[in-house]
Amino acid sequence: MRKNSVSPLVPLGALSMTDRVENILRAYFAENKFKPGDALPNETDIAAQLNVSRNVVREALSRLRMLGMIEARPRRGMIIAQPDLLAGLEKVLNPLILSVGDLKDIFDMRLMQEMGMAEFLFARKTKKQMEELKLLVESQSDPHLPTKAEEIAFHGKLYEMTGNETFTRFQTLLMPVFDHVFSEYFDKGTKVDIPDPVIHRDLVEVLEKGTADDFRKAMYTHLLPYYKSGHITPRGKDQAS
Amino acid sequence: MRKNSVSPLVPLGALSMTDRVENILRAYFAENKFKPGDALPNETDIAAQLNVSRNVVREALSRLRMLGMIEARPRRGMIIAQPDLLAGLEKVLNPLILSVGDLKDIFDMRLMQEMGMAEFLFARKTKKQMEELKLLVESQSDPHLPTKAEEIAFHGKLYEMTGNETFTRFQTLLMPVFDHVFSEYFDKGTKVDIPDPVIHRDLVEVLEKGTADDFRKAMYTHLLPYYKSGHITPRGKDQAS
Repeated sequence: MRKNSVSPLVPLGALSMTDRVENILRAYFAENKFKPGDALPNETDIAAQLNVSRNVVREALSRLRMLGMIEARPRRGMIIAQPDLLAGLEKVLNPLILSVGDLKDIFDMRLMQEMGMAEFLFARKTKKQMEELKLLVESQSDPHLPTKAEEIAFHGKLYEMTGNETFTRFQTLLMPVFDHVFSEYFDKGTKVDIPDPVIHRDLVEVLEKGTADDFRKAMYTHLLPYYKSGHITPRGKDQAS
Repeated sequence: MRKNSVSPLVPLGALSMTDRVENILRAYFAENKFKPGDALPNETDIAAQLNVSRNVVREALSRLRMLGMIEARPRRGMIIAQPDLLAGLEKVLNPLILSVGDLKDIFDMRLMQEMGMAEFLFARKTKKQMEELKLLVESQSDPHLPTKAEEIAFHGKLYEMTGNETFTRFQTLLMPVFDHVFSEYFDKGTKVDIPDPVIHRDLVEVLEKGTADDFRKAMYTHLLPYYKSGHITPRGKDQAS
């Protein structure tokens, strides 16, 4: 289902008992300023205090365990843990069940982030990473038509060079969906003619000698086949231009 | 716990029975090309086929229900549903339990996305939205020091104008974390002097008369206090410059 920009208020009737216990527990952690390592009340106590069955509590706790918010420690019961930010997202990234709208949103988001990372690349790139990036480019059999694996290796290295692990993992998760959307929903037949294409080797050169802004311009040209393939078009009815 | 850029291979011993059943079910949906609306085998059948207890199956299904991947329909049992892409992320965005590294990553990601959205803004903005944006700016009591609510309203409207609901919701989720990180981890005392600051009114003007590239430059200056507050600095030891 397509979601609004803010998460919708869910009518209480639509919430199962497990949903409600899960929400109550998360709110309880936040309100009581629980931190990683803090012990949780045990299952039986939670069930008694909330006046629900232990099965319901067990299900709610199992959800929180999946998100990494809590974990079981031998002889210490359940404790609060540092969650895995992207665990939930990773699990639902199945192109066959996501809505076409969500898939196209993901496609766009990858493009946005390739453009937005320039400042961070320039602030954090290391000599060692630059060498590794060059090696990746030199090992490509056809620099004008890198394989899928070579694409992933090259862009993956750039993400890594932003020094942002969450961003790197997020972008890496989006890449297969990006390819799926491009091949399923955009007209592959329409070959976009880019008069002066920018290939990986050019991006490396700009990264070495240029500025964040130069790099962004080069990246835009590099991504132009995607920008031009008809997807960055007005979606509404009353567009300004 | 800080995660690597690719999700780690989890040793099987660390997986609970519920984790394993959850993974098996998600893989089963993907391999059998399940689509929204398709019926699931019932709980008893799944338990029998996997040779696990019904409690374990119930917990695993409860997790998938939380992510929106499955839902219960009256008289039809469980069916596959279109998941909520950001449900998992939304639930763990508690600044008190996330690692400082994850929080700073989120901070950077908001900045990256503010820079990356320009092309989409220009391709999709509508006349109506431009009018609404102007009204927001005109209603600010102090244009040079908008309130937190006015900040959220203005940037939220820009996100909306990208026509990307997932992006809009993602950015909106990040905003409170962004503020938390800025006030907790960066030196508020160091007032950054921006000789020629860009305020919301200026951004609107560029959005009306300029290009995506002009807008990005204006946005960069608008966000300069954040970029300059010491956080966009090398993180590693062997930085190139």
